[in-house]
Amino acid sequence: MEKHNGLLIVLSGPSGAGKGTICHELRRKLPDVQYSVSATTRYPRPGEVDGLDYFFRTREEFQTMIEKNELLEWAEFCENYYGTPLFAVEQALQSGTDVILEIEIQGALQIKERFPHGVFIFVIPPSMSVLSERIHKRGTESEEVIRKRLETATRELEYVTEYDYVIVNDELEKAVDKLKCILVAEKCRVKRKSYDFQGV
Amino acid sequence: MEKHNGLLIVLSGPSGAGKGTICHELRRKLPDVQYSVSATTRYPRPGEVDGLDYFFRTREEFQTMIEKNELLEWAEFCENYYGTPLFAVEQALQSGTDVILEIEIQGALQIKERFPHGVFIFVIPPSMSVLSERIHKRGTESEEVIRKRLETATRELEYVTEYDYVIVNDELEKAVDKLKCILVAEKCRVKRKSYDFQGV
Repeated sequence: MEKHNGLLIVLSGPSGAGKGTICHELRRKLPDVQYSVSATTRYPRPGEVDGLDYFFRTREEFQTMIEKNELLEWAEFCENYYGTPLFAVEQALQSGTDVILEIEIQGALQIKERFPHGVFIFVIPPSMSVLSERIHKRGTESEEVIRKRLETATRELEYVTEYDYVIVNDELEKAVDKLKCILVAEKCRVKRKSYDFQGV
Repeated sequence: MEKHNGLLIVLSGPSGAGKGTICHELRRKLPDVQYSVSATTRYPRPGEVDGLDYFFRTREEFQTMIEKNELLEWAEFCENYYGTPLFAVEQALQSGTDVILEIEIQGALQIKERFPHGVFIFVIPPSMSVLSERIHKRGTESEEVIRKRLETATRELEYVTEYDYVIVNDELEKAVDKLKCILVAEKCRVKRKSYDFQGV
């Protein structure tokens, strides 16, 4: 009675809003959702694994991927490239698997042009002071980089209107539950279904 | 940071799809949601209580309500009037309370004209044979009325495209969980929020 491809869920928001943590938790709770691994030129943070958290690539390697059109989107952010390899995403969606992308705002907007039927979710911190605290706690960036990130984050909040949903990440469990509900609700949306009532 | 009124959730679908049972269960699980009580001229079924399940009214009383514009919507269905008293719904929404309306399709479409921002949910049975079984089980209508209801139900399935969401009522618990998720997701929708990032 009903056919549909997998959902493309794009999780985005200002740096430090906690989208990575939410994705990680969702992945644990919904193992059937495919988590798209991005490519990046930034250095791995402690604990990050190549091919699992990111594909860590040199600038030269990344530029080759751009030239060969192998990326669904890419962006330069804080002097590093970030991008989404196209092939795996399309294959998963066509086979009916839901795919989650966790990406920066510039990348999300590029995806929206190519996948207007994706589900675009904006994760925001409960306040700017919490955001500042989170970025400092990470302890992997210099003060100058942190200041830049906070400035960017403030500017980026304005992009919320480009998204379908907004999740305030005050408590991880609650935020993950909301994300799970958005997935369930989107699968019930009439516009995602094609109906044939013969034999219903 | 964010202001919004209560959500108006309109639960509709063919007769016998099980929307009443879903509403009843949701009401138990989410006592904060206000369940709008409809007025009707049909006779109470066993166990139904006036003022709780419906306001049971005579045809004359109902016609007076229509004339006085006291109804948000009304319809005649299987030779009975059904309608939604306006006052209580508007008051609840304005005070930030979510309101659920469980109504027939004609009524739902009237509501949509007046409340385009409502959440319109179409409940369908898993199959027409299940629907027939459910209506027979009820045992409160004659064979002729049942035949009419089934014909109407088949025609009414076409209206699904007027709705935002569709829930297939195969298992009550699952259907109620989906409905709960739709409520959570709708509260995260960007278009329902007004943003002021000052002091975020």
